[in-house]
Amino acid sequence: MKYSKLFGKATFDSSKDSKFASYNLLIKGGFIRESSAGRFFFLPLGWRVHDKMKAIIKEEMDATGAQEMLVPTLHPLGLWEETNRTNSVGFELMKIKDRNGAEFALGGTAEEMFVDVVRKLHLSHKDLPINLYQFSNKFRDEFRARGGLLRVREFIMKDAYSFHTNEEDFLKEYEVMAAAYKRMYQRMGLEALQVAADNGYIGGEYCHEYQVESELGEGRFFVSEDGKYSAHEDIAEFECEEKNSNEELLEYEEVDAIRGTTMEDGVKFHHLPLWQQIKDVLFATESGELVLAIIRGDLDVNEIKLAHAIGAHTLRHATEEEVRTLDTEPGFISPVGLSGKVKIIGDTSLRTVVNAYGGANVLHRDALNINIDRDYQLDLETDIAMAQPGFKTRDGTSTLVEKRGIEVGNIFQLGYHYSKKMKDATFTSESGEQLPFYMGCYGFGIGRTLATVVEKHHDDRGILWPASIAPYQVHLISLQGGEEQAAVVYNKLQTAGIEVLWDEREESAGVKFADADLLGIPTRLIVSKKTGNQVEWKARTDEKSELISLDECLNRCGNS
Amino acid sequence: MKYSKLFGKATFDSSKDSKFASYNLLIKGGFIRESSAGRFFFLPLGWRVHDKMKAIIKEEMDATGAQEMLVPTLHPLGLWEETNRTNSVGFELMKIKDRNGAEFALGGTAEEMFVDVVRKLHLSHKDLPINLYQFSNKFRDEFRARGGLLRVREFIMKDAYSFHTNEEDFLKEYEVMAAAYKRMYQRMGLEALQVAADNGYIGGEYCHEYQVESELGEGRFFVSEDGKYSAHEDIAEFECEEKNSNEELLEYEEVDAIRGTTMEDGVKFHHLPLWQQIKDVLFATESGELVLAIIRGDLDVNEIKLAHAIGAHTLRHATEEEVRTLDTEPGFISPVGLSGKVKIIGDTSLRTVVNAYGGANVLHRDALNINIDRDYQLDLETDIAMAQPGFKTRDGTSTLVEKRGIEVGNIFQLGYHYSKKMKDATFTSESGEQLPFYMGCYGFGIGRTLATVVEKHHDDRGILWPASIAPYQVHLISLQGGEEQAAVVYNKLQTAGIEVLWDEREESAGVKFADADLLGIPTRLIVSKKTGNQVEWKARTDEKSELISLDECLNRCGNS
Repeated sequence: MKYSKLFGKATFDSSKDSKFASYNLLIKGGFIRESSAGRFFFLPLGWRVHDKMKAIIKEEMDATGAQEMLVPTLHPLGLWEETNRTNSVGFELMKIKDRNGAEFALGGTAEEMFVDVVRKLHLSHKDLPINLYQFSNKFRDEFRARGGLLRVREFIMKDAYSFHTNEEDFLKEYEVMAAAYKRMYQRMGLEALQVAADNGYIGGEYCHEYQVESELGEGRFFVSEDGKYSAHEDIAEFECEEKNSNEELLEYEEVDAIRGTTMEDGVKFHHLPLWQQIKDVLFATESGELVLAIIRGDLDVNEIKLAHAIGAHTLRHATEEEVRTLDTEPGFISPVGLSGKVKIIGDTSLRTVVNAYGGANVLHRDALNINIDRDYQLDLETDIAMAQPGFKTRDGTSTLVEKRGIEVGNIFQLGYHYSKKMKDATFTSESGEQLPFYMGCYGFGIGRTLATVVEKHHDDRGILWPASIAPYQVHLISLQGGEEQAAVVYNKLQTAGIEVLWDEREESAGVKFADADLLGIPTRLIVSKKTGNQVEWKARTDEKSELISLDECLNRCGNS
Repeated sequence: MKYSKLFGKATFDSSKDSKFASYNLLIKGGFIRESSAGRFFFLPLGWRVHDKMKAIIKEEMDATGAQEMLVPTLHPLGLWEETNRTNSVGFELMKIKDRNGAEFALGGTAEEMFVDVVRKLHLSHKDLPINLYQFSNKFRDEFRARGGLLRVREFIMKDAYSFHTNEEDFLKEYEVMAAAYKRMYQRMGLEALQVAADNGYIGGEYCHEYQVESELGEGRFFVSEDGKYSAHEDIAEFECEEKNSNEELLEYEEVDAIRGTTMEDGVKFHHLPLWQQIKDVLFATESGELVLAIIRGDLDVNEIKLAHAIGAHTLRHATEEEVRTLDTEPGFISPVGLSGKVKIIGDTSLRTVVNAYGGANVLHRDALNINIDRDYQLDLETDIAMAQPGFKTRDGTSTLVEKRGIEVGNIFQLGYHYSKKMKDATFTSESGEQLPFYMGCYGFGIGRTLATVVEKHHDDRGILWPASIAPYQVHLISLQGGEEQAAVVYNKLQTAGIEVLWDEREESAGVKFADADLLGIPTRLIVSKKTGNQVEWKARTDEKSELISLDECLNRCGNS
């Protein structure tokens, strides 16, 4: 490709720079361009990278025996109603009606569509297992787009769905997919951590995210120092330190407490430790039901764990008015006496403390020596706590370290979540019965991963593409007097099947070098009056260049 | 691929058969499956064919220097408003709003999007010409879907858009694209005729469709017997035979005419030839304006030509009530006396006849010896006639033959149609001026072309895929006693890089042969107890099979 005719060239306009290196470099390098917020044009250079990533994913998926196919982008809304996901989907589902009034969802994920096509084909146990995948546009009506390709509203995803006769067979595939994902990221120059996560609106019981460590990432997760445990903050577990639970129970009493409404106000007023205070947080579910979460004062409520515990899709903090409907007072809530009026969910940490203190359901009245079971009862006692760095792992043998990362993919156990909700999502067993499929699904967003590669592989001059996904292998620069020889080199490289971008413009060496550094193609070749029959070879990651013969050059390119 | 695990297998269920062989065979062969009306799942076999067609298109496009990229599926509606296409688009545009209230069109074609990205990059004449293309989902809110993949509501199209400094440069690209299209169809086993057509809602002044002859096609076009002329019925021109225009003009008169309202009623009543009658057809435009089209009685009005002549997007026949608003009568309309009351458009054929007859704008009154200019005036005289088979070509040297075909692609001159409507759609000329781009665009619907290949390449047992786009090259069948040897053959073929589908199921030879014929893979290999160390080779298009060595088999497969 001659650079003069390439659509989308390097530009050093930094007027739109953001804190995201990937956004800045991909825009400046002419890889992408914004259409509307969160929707991007892939220019030819960016599309070549995207294509190579797609090819790697396809190779790895095909090697596992997965089969590529395609489902329509417009999903009949009735399918999403079968699984009740029109109500539960975490991202806002985009819906559309056609001229005949038929309603569709713009596919944001395609579980229902794959179950639908599979049930249409009436499979038997002999046809199983199968793993079906597609590359297709996904639509997410995100409230805010962010960071260029890192959080977008439209993107191409590889999504795969596997169908099994039972859990045992599924677990084998889950391992196969985990291994394939590991290879994909490695081949793209990324080190991705496999982190246990929450299934969210996808459903199912467990899943893993692939996280690439980055301060800019939206994901917060914990790994243990010994490397044996990793989990997203949404689900991370820890061992809760004992406090004073061996002390004697003292008599419950209430006192006047002219104080503010924060936890710190309570600590200051009573001169007691934070952990001895009870933290009471009132939430409302999507249906308006109130739920009181209580937890040890030094811990925070993990809303995802809480939502799962009570089977809610979404939670919000209750308003002060809602608090008062329970005959209590914001800042002075207490579980004592609220049983029966509101569902009370207590964290297991409450067992590590006795003689706790907190509000007394009346403005400027506090209670002392509050004790579980004796003074109040829980409707549910479970883990609803947010992990914190430095906490012990659940088994007590290691310590949690906090990380931030960019989520570049995920694999999900779905179990019977879809096959039991959707009619006839069954196969014929050996004994002739109709049994529901045991399922899994596996997602890979290409654009976000592409941006992540740039976040991890760049310097202050530009991108450093891993050779596996570079838009071209060679960036050939002809300088004054080297044009003829450059044409020879260009043709020889192309004949040898090496992808080469030839900057043949009448620009200065400085301009051309800066453009090459920005674009980040792995090998730079210079042909000028001075290089004669040789070429100057420089790796993008190296500072030194060397003069080599054309044969040696072809040899190196062929092997890179 | 082992057939037992292939998702989507042959079925001989003919309960959903239609008149379209492609639909029946693609469904039965497990290539596609319907999701909702006009939206299809591509199953793995069908997707492999689709992928191979895509690869051919990409190869041919890249060879011309065109650059692949991708624009978002959701087009900001404001872009379509810039070109006023929200009103003029022939197919119903699908629109959607996001949660922030931003409005989008679901891309049905992407002229505005490509102009938008090109103008964002501020090109100069040095960057031109460029031809940019994408493969992407297109949405058409068709009132009726039809014939499986032949008329759908969602499909993958290769659409390309070229940008030039002037018409001369564009014309070169138009020829380059025409040649590339010819090669694409040839490589897919299709003979496609290049037929001049109407630009329709795409805009521009001329274009060509690629039509594959088929009785099932929706397109009607004309070719001249000498092969020099071909044009869609919408725009086909012809030489209008002289009738009696050398005769003396007779005096205009009106007579009582107790007759029906058809042209035939007029012929019978007056015992005069059909061609001497004036055909008057009243139309209404999208804005409700009435337009009277008149033409020689033996010809029909071509509504596309008429719409272009008056600059209307759509036309409909006027109602009887609308006719009467002009103080005339259905079945008795005459241009005489209607000038000024309604716009009158006359076909050039009116010049080939004198002393015409027809209605007199009053029920049961007719006029005789109506003559143009003397008795009535036209607001516009132009070609608004529909061609008919047997008519002479415009230059009179050949005769028109009628054909029906399936439109499998098209190339359009756009000229300045978009660049003059969209702000800043300009490049910097050598002299530093901002000049509008001269443009063209080039479309190729893959799914419809795939179905057309099946229409042209099948027999009563199934599909006969051209090797270039067959899902697999070899259909290996192992029969009882041949399983071990078949595994050897399978592995050798795969190692040699030959795509092979191995039917290793425990089914009868009859079932396996029928499935192989239906699937239509070019080469069938049988390995059984009888074949020993050899294999039985049969081409799908041949009746005879032969026993050959595995080496010979590998040799043949490698060369096919």
